[in-house]
Amino acid sequence: MKLHILGCHSATPRSLVFPSSQILEINNELLLIDAGEGMQIQLRKYKHKFNKIKYIFISHLHGDHFYGLVGFLSTLRLLGRGKEIHLFAPVGLKEILQLQFKVTQTDINYPLVYHELSSNKPELILETDKFTVETIPLIHRIYANGYLVKEKEKLRNLNIEAIKKYPEIGIWAYHNLKKGKDFVCENGKIIPNTELTIPPPRPKSYAYCSDTIYKPDIVEQIKNVDLLYHESTFLETDKELATKTKHSTAKQAATIAKMAQVNKLVLGHFSSRYPNENLFIKEAKTIFENVDIAREGKSFEV
Amino acid sequence: MKLHILGCHSATPRSLVFPSSQILEINNELLLIDAGEGMQIQLRKYKHKFNKIKYIFISHLHGDHFYGLVGFLSTLRLLGRGKEIHLFAPVGLKEILQLQFKVTQTDINYPLVYHELSSNKPELILETDKFTVETIPLIHRIYANGYLVKEKEKLRNLNIEAIKKYPEIGIWAYHNLKKGKDFVCENGKIIPNTELTIPPPRPKSYAYCSDTIYKPDIVEQIKNVDLLYHESTFLETDKELATKTKHSTAKQAATIAKMAQVNKLVLGHFSSRYPNENLFIKEAKTIFENVDIAREGKSFEV
Repeated sequence: MKLHILGCHSATPRSLVFPSSQILEINNELLLIDAGEGMQIQLRKYKHKFNKIKYIFISHLHGDHFYGLVGFLSTLRLLGRGKEIHLFAPVGLKEILQLQFKVTQTDINYPLVYHELSSNKPELILETDKFTVETIPLIHRIYANGYLVKEKEKLRNLNIEAIKKYPEIGIWAYHNLKKGKDFVCENGKIIPNTELTIPPPRPKSYAYCSDTIYKPDIVEQIKNVDLLYHESTFLETDKELATKTKHSTAKQAATIAKMAQVNKLVLGHFSSRYPNENLFIKEAKTIFENVDIAREGKSFEV
Repeated sequence: MKLHILGCHSATPRSLVFPSSQILEINNELLLIDAGEGMQIQLRKYKHKFNKIKYIFISHLHGDHFYGLVGFLSTLRLLGRGKEIHLFAPVGLKEILQLQFKVTQTDINYPLVYHELSSNKPELILETDKFTVETIPLIHRIYANGYLVKEKEKLRNLNIEAIKKYPEIGIWAYHNLKKGKDFVCENGKIIPNTELTIPPPRPKSYAYCSDTIYKPDIVEQIKNVDLLYHESTFLETDKELATKTKHSTAKQAATIAKMAQVNKLVLGHFSSRYPNENLFIKEAKTIFENVDIAREGKSFEV
């Protein structure tokens, strides 16, 4: 699993920085999380294949998180996409997109499946062979969700050296061994699975939380995730403004990371008022050590 | 009058090029013509003041000509704009914008005046002290207009040296002299205006024609303009495709320029299929000599 930042700044535009948008790469599939204006330009720039995106997740309906979506979906049409796209977003986006497709006479030539979200409780919204996605209810000035992506338990790896010692174990048995089953010989003798296989890498997990007020009740849900992206629009010096606009400070994001005992925290959604983004790191590090800042084009191994 | 290109490419996104959008600078005022995705990023990059834009003109409702508008209008709100904005656009855009403002709970805190266009005949849609704007009806796959911006006749410049020879001409008389009136002395003697003033620079004019099929009936309206921006999505090798998709070739754009006897032609709206944009110039030059190509960040003196 790998996170690629396309944009990570708050709404006010600045030269050469982009609003929220990111790609989560998981088993050679790309999940698009938020789609601020210009995201398709960024996709091209960082050479992500448009065609590998099948699932899109929009956190909330403020423009800096979705104004790039309609252009991206229109481009997929131009590129002759056939495969379906699943769009998970708050109620309202479907109406916006459909009106734009109607007025622009854009005939979307691939199945676009809308999954409209309105619950205030965590929901399992997607389950594939390889991973699951849950909503993380957030509190912002408008209905908002974060997303928790969890890899599923992988199959065990065969220890071929060990298996070779038992000629009676044929290839036909490998599938069950990978699933963790012991091998039962014809004479009834049991060879324990742990002797024949190696545990798979631990399943990884990623949590995206933007935009939100400081909301400690998400800690339980995101406990122990490998990577947490949490918004930090402000610094503590502007804590009142953060509360008023329902955003978080770097310190608050770090507090969530510490309580949830995540492996690593990445900060993003920076307000344009601060001259230097390293200030966010400095503030967060007073609470939580393993912290980094998002930047256009930067990638993070989960 | 000066034209600044923010974006000049057709819909398929490429790295670091932008769809149609441009700024016409006229008497220290900025007219925004089309607003493809990312235009506000380009505005910042090329240091155009957001606040100087009061009039916006959208040619047609294909996404590559207006998907950047809603973000720009939202940003003006964040910047605390008070002054009004006039938006000239085909019927349909008002509904799209109002739905997005409603769903995103964006309270536009400045007067946004919609001028919805639906006529198929040229219309005078704006007249200020300094300039006029007319629609140029085009033919595309969807209702489309070009725009013709004409400076008004300026006041004549005083020839102070000449005036000084006549002590009876006081400052009180200057206003009428600038307007071209002769000076009448107390004794009834007439001093001709041409002796006292210098003609002002000739009023300049600019025509924007994108997107459109080859449409020679626009020639009469844009006759003798100083600068013509005409789309040339294709080259003559793809002429059939141009006709089918209701676009123009470089040669067709040059033919319009030649017939209209414009001073200079700028080509834009290039398809991504061609490796080298100089091919457009080469083709156009076979018909019309004074031709250049648009490029992000390039400016043209009108």
